[in-house]
Amino acid sequence: MKFSLQQIAHLIGGDLRGDGNILVHDFAKIEEGKPGCISFLGNPKYENYIYSTSSSAVIVSKNFEPRKEITTNLIAVEDPYLAIGNLMSEYQKLTKNQKTGREDFSVIKETAKVSENCFLGSFSYVSEGSIVEENVQIFPQVFIGKNVKIGKNTIIYSGVKIYDGTEIGDHCVIHSGAVVGSDGFGFAPDANGVYQDIPQLGIVIIGNHVSIGANTTIDRATMGATLIGNGVKLDNLVQIGHNVEIGDNTVIASQSGVAGSTKIGKSCLIAGQVGFVGHITIADGTKIGAQSGVSKSITKPNMSFSGRPLLPINDYLKQQVALRKIFVNDNKK
Amino acid sequence: MKFSLQQIAHLIGGDLRGDGNILVHDFAKIEEGKPGCISFLGNPKYENYIYSTSSSAVIVSKNFEPRKEITTNLIAVEDPYLAIGNLMSEYQKLTKNQKTGREDFSVIKETAKVSENCFLGSFSYVSEGSIVEENVQIFPQVFIGKNVKIGKNTIIYSGVKIYDGTEIGDHCVIHSGAVVGSDGFGFAPDANGVYQDIPQLGIVIIGNHVSIGANTTIDRATMGATLIGNGVKLDNLVQIGHNVEIGDNTVIASQSGVAGSTKIGKSCLIAGQVGFVGHITIADGTKIGAQSGVSKSITKPNMSFSGRPLLPINDYLKQQVALRKIFVNDNKK
Amino acid sequence: MKFSLQQIAHLIGGDLRGDGNILVHDFAKIEEGKPGCISFLGNPKYENYIYSTSSSAVIVSKNFEPRKEITTNLIAVEDPYLAIGNLMSEYQKLTKNQKTGREDFSVIKETAKVSENCFLGSFSYVSEGSIVEENVQIFPQVFIGKNVKIGKNTIIYSGVKIYDGTEIGDHCVIHSGAVVGSDGFGFAPDANGVYQDIPQLGIVIIGNHVSIGANTTIDRATMGATLIGNGVKLDNLVQIGHNVEIGDNTVIASQSGVAGSTKIGKSCLIAGQVGFVGHITIADGTKIGAQSGVSKSITKPNMSFSGRPLLPINDYLKQQVALRKIFVNDNKK
Repeated sequence: MKFSLQQIAHLIGGDLRGDGNILVHDFAKIEEGKPGCISFLGNPKYENYIYSTSSSAVIVSKNFEPRKEITTNLIAVEDPYLAIGNLMSEYQKLTKNQKTGREDFSVIKETAKVSENCFLGSFSYVSEGSIVEENVQIFPQVFIGKNVKIGKNTIIYSGVKIYDGTEIGDHCVIHSGAVVGSDGFGFAPDANGVYQDIPQLGIVIIGNHVSIGANTTIDRATMGATLIGNGVKLDNLVQIGHNVEIGDNTVIASQSGVAGSTKIGKSCLIAGQVGFVGHITIADGTKIGAQSGVSKSITKPNMSFSGRPLLPINDYLKQQVALRKIFVNDNKK
Repeated sequence: MKFSLQQIAHLIGGDLRGDGNILVHDFAKIEEGKPGCISFLGNPKYENYIYSTSSSAVIVSKNFEPRKEITTNLIAVEDPYLAIGNLMSEYQKLTKNQKTGREDFSVIKETAKVSENCFLGSFSYVSEGSIVEENVQIFPQVFIGKNVKIGKNTIIYSGVKIYDGTEIGDHCVIHSGAVVGSDGFGFAPDANGVYQDIPQLGIVIIGNHVSIGANTTIDRATMGATLIGNGVKLDNLVQIGHNVEIGDNTVIASQSGVAGSTKIGKSCLIAGQVGFVGHITIADGTKIGAQSGVSKSITKPNMSFSGRPLLPINDYLKQQVALRKIFVNDNKK
Repeated sequence: MKFSLQQIAHLIGGDLRGDGNILVHDFAKIEEGKPGCISFLGNPKYENYIYSTSSSAVIVSKNFEPRKEITTNLIAVEDPYLAIGNLMSEYQKLTKNQKTGREDFSVIKETAKVSENCFLGSFSYVSEGSIVEENVQIFPQVFIGKNVKIGKNTIIYSGVKIYDGTEIGDHCVIHSGAVVGSDGFGFAPDANGVYQDIPQLGIVIIGNHVSIGANTTIDRATMGATLIGNGVKLDNLVQIGHNVEIGDNTVIASQSGVAGSTKIGKSCLIAGQVGFVGHITIADGTKIGAQSGVSKSITKPNMSFSGRPLLPINDYLKQQVALRKIFVNDNKK
């Protein structure tokens, strides 16, 4: 399928600077551009490539002012990353060949209900009492426990495991190997120092438009529910402890972990390899830098922090400078 | 099922302070209490909720002295967390509907032995020479390699993968996505800097009453065995390297990693995101704070440490204060 | 099977110091040696065991000079770890009983091609358009998406999930629970702060002789390809972000993560729990210490670094000393 730059500019509401009749048929990174491809310039670090790219067109920011001659065609938009995302979504809709129906060697227990226009892949297993709504895609080798509810248009990739009682909203995407609803880590030492299991009787509730990365784990609550809000995006290998609550539209990058009963607000941005202790509360709009350790509640919204111990971002940056200086001085003595 | 507070106090050996005829039928967190529910007060951070909870009863510590009027009923015990755990265990026993038998689309190779009162879910695979003892529950999509031994009453959740030769004790729980017995990370560079695989010919041996969290990985030994002691509790996404030994009743929280050949003693408490280098020995009863880096052996038992570099806990706490002070002073100059 | 020390010395090109007629039949760690076993002494920390081991023979370095009397037999080589690795590989070849053929309850979609001398385990699924070359072993419960290519002699352990379009080279080993080709973590906030998915249309390309550890995750590219070079070794629970490139013969230890679009050079050694931010470039031969945070490009090859902030290794070691000193002084005030 080929599209003219005219068509594309129209589709993404962009301002065409170049030849609208040029046709493109694929996407390419700006540094790997080829004729017939469209690229985008989001991160200013990559600006140099725009002067030499072989892509037929590049989506840029409306604020972009070339410092040299440009030979490719431009389409200027408010947010190039969002615009190319929208364009790729449209492309994906046209090219994707979605399966429906039930494949061989799949199990649906008697009291479970799977809507007819769903896809259920081979070797997938839907336990007693579960409800799978319209247009859900369940890839092969998925396990769905008892009394699970999966909302419409959700995609569950191969090998996802969902424990009993989990509730998943609409339009979610759960990647391979993710585990939802495993037991919280609860043990109480008896008089001999031997740990007794605390049964985990709660569930996990996941909102709408949530993405869960590959091999991420979300534990069920001891009592009540572990809550993942609407629009939350969890990267790969993230750990969410029992009774944690994650507010709407919060993003957590890879390998971060949130210990039991901690509540993270809405629209927070958590970088990779961050750790949160249990039983704290994080205000809406908080940003946490990579590899930070968060050991206390954060009450003021929309602030940025980093480090271990966690510091306001400006103090953290000064700390990094001071740390280097001290060692230099110390080494000079 | 409903129980009177009288019955519950009797069951958990508690001291009833309130109306023994009140009936409860469910558990709730103290801050989410509803009539008909029983809650507990373990962490003092949650004390305020006891004065306003709607739960019909709360299990508290014998030392708990209310600072205000309380309208709910109390059951006082030595250890509220352990007591509610015991109560939940009894409840779980009464309500759990355990499956037995072998489901469709499951594979047991000819020379494997699965005891008759086990449960073997669909799409699970038991390889040649393996032995599964009485009352083991194997959920769907589990892989059990050759010559594996699984002790009685162990539960293996959906999607667990167990490599050849692994030995697992009695009363263990292994959560979804855990991998036991994968190759240790052993490579030797040849004269050209190309890494040659060191075959991993050893096994993994797991004791009794061990819990292994979701997506945790335990590597087989190069030679001999990786050993996980009795009563060990591993959280989700933990990495245990080849030839590691973990002593009885040691607890390791999420996303911590132990590199090859390190030996951790008995009854240690390891917080989340901790890293241990290889080839060190950690004394019994050691406690390590979250995100610490442990690069040397610890010989004195029952000590607490934190940080990177690792410091005795009191020094670590002073370090955190000093670090903040230095930057403040530095910033003032 | 038994082998004489004469045969073994010949096989690994070693210099026999002892009785060549002695027979051995198994491997053992030097500290757990038994008669009939062969051990090796690689790490000097274990030297003391060579004076008391019960193993019938020990492979040592040509430079090894005993400080006490030795009662076992020695075989001296350039690199004991590499030599025992080669010996174990030969042993494994002789004792391994490789399966071939297709097991019951496996799915190969019509347009997929699986070479006849492959092994395809039960509950594995090969999607449309995929090509599996000669001698590939696919264990049970593996998922292979559409248009995947798997090169000859590659081993894919139980439960691996490979998304559409992935290309895997020859002689690779992929351990259980690894996920290759999941969506990159790309979301763009719209005007309301709600994250819109950026479709991930690229693929993952993996070279030859690559090892991928258990539960490791490798994301597909947004456009183009995430690239894993020849001879790369990834440990368990590693995260590789979208559009990352890892150069030939680079080794990354457990629980490290590489954020999107970062390029790591050839023959790098990355220890455990390291984090790399996105969009940086790391020179060939770089070594990074455990738990480091790498936030800037490294341009000079063959250098060693550690810490957060990342410092040249010598500065890092001084930093660790200075940090301790400062706190001591501070505490004395």
